[in-house]
Amino acid sequence: DATEALLTDIATLPKIARMALTNPMPMGPWKITVYDQENFQGKRMEFTSSCQNIMECGVDNIRSLKVECGAWVGYEHSSYCGQQFILERGDYPRWESWSGSNAYHIERLMSFRPVCCANHKESKITVFERENFIGRQWEMCDDYPSLQAMGWPNNELGSMQVQSGAWVCYQYPGYRGYQYILECDRHGGEYKHYREWGSHAQTFQVQSLRRVQQ
Amino acid sequence: DATEALLTDIATLPKIARMALTNPMPMGPWKITVYDQENFQGKRMEFTSSCQNIMECGVDNIRSLKVECGAWVGYEHSSYCGQQFILERGDYPRWESWSGSNAYHIERLMSFRPVCCANHKESKITVFERENFIGRQWEMCDDYPSLQAMGWPNNELGSMQVQSGAWVCYQYPGYRGYQYILECDRHGGEYKHYREWGSHAQTFQVQSLRRVQQ
Repeated sequence: DATEALLTDIATLPKIARMALTNPMPMGPWKITVYDQENFQGKRMEFTSSCQNIMECGVDNIRSLKVECGAWVGYEHSSYCGQQFILERGDYPRWESWSGSNAYHIERLMSFRPVCCANHKESKITVFERENFIGRQWEMCDDYPSLQAMGWPNNELGSMQVQSGAWVCYQYPGYRGYQYILECDRHGGEYKHYREWGSHAQTFQVQSLRRVQQ
Repeated sequence: DATEALLTDIATLPKIARMALTNPMPMGPWKITVYDQENFQGKRMEFTSSCQNIMECGVDNIRSLKVECGAWVGYEHSSYCGQQFILERGDYPRWESWSGSNAYHIERLMSFRPVCCANHKESKITVFERENFIGRQWEMCDDYPSLQAMGWPNNELGSMQVQSGAWVCYQYPGYRGYQYILECDRHGGEYKHYREWGSHAQTFQVQSLRRVQQ
């Protein structure tokens, strides 16, 4: 249905049509431009691959950015630690534009790396009621702004196994609160306990979940 | 209970009722429980239809809530004014759990009402490059965490026309920043200028867009 909608616009939006027809590059190329001041001001740096510590580029922090190609994940600390922020194509003029509503306000973005997505229709994740992949389970291939609306019995997930693609899950409904990026090619796609979701995870609370798109 | 909620709303919201008659069960029944303290503490009140001013129930503000059925929209001020917050099924223990990351922190939720969704696959919206439905256009029936990733040329939408269902659009990619709820049965589904998106809208900036789910 989305494809049909896109096809009607071949004339006006050729890039969209091309994407819909073939999706030739499910992952990449990647490009991100970061700035050390808000509103795309200050020192400007372009990257096409990961950056483990922005201080090595001679700036103290990233304060705005534009994702020009691909999906990325940004981290509060260097070496891909601390709070995680999914970054898809678009403009992010200040820290609030990528942080979740529940983020603690340290306002740092010190490292980032590309994320590999599956073709959109092929993403798959299995969520489990309890840690270590036990209890009730549910295989998902779509976006869910409210897991409870789709019948999940409570506001927690015990563990998750990513079969394909990259996913981002959120503490609150409607894609709000802490973000956890889960990928099939990290940890073997296995996230047995909230401690494996990210160093900032403190509870099993997850109430919405969606695919990461290129 | 369900019938009562619908019947109540037939009087106040005739268009919703009409939709309910022609569309097998597009929504509802609705149920929301609100509390005047954080973490589901303090005075507790249940609603199955809209509330124009929570102060009429003898409390000064809503500080936590649980959506138990249906989708709702909450407002910063009474009479459905100010910042808008989409509320889907799940637990919201404090203001940060429903506000966008870019919300100004007045931390008030004073009125709320049900939102009518279409069947999920039938939602449709047309977005336009410029105000008053002119310029490039794009018909959408899916969720888009990044409009630019799908080929939209910039970080703005000029106007929007909702053909079916309810949609929420966001200032930043990944469903972040200010939220604007758009419905086919409000304004005749027509949102010609950002001034019509909501009283808190100050720019044309919209970078992600998704359907509201029941």
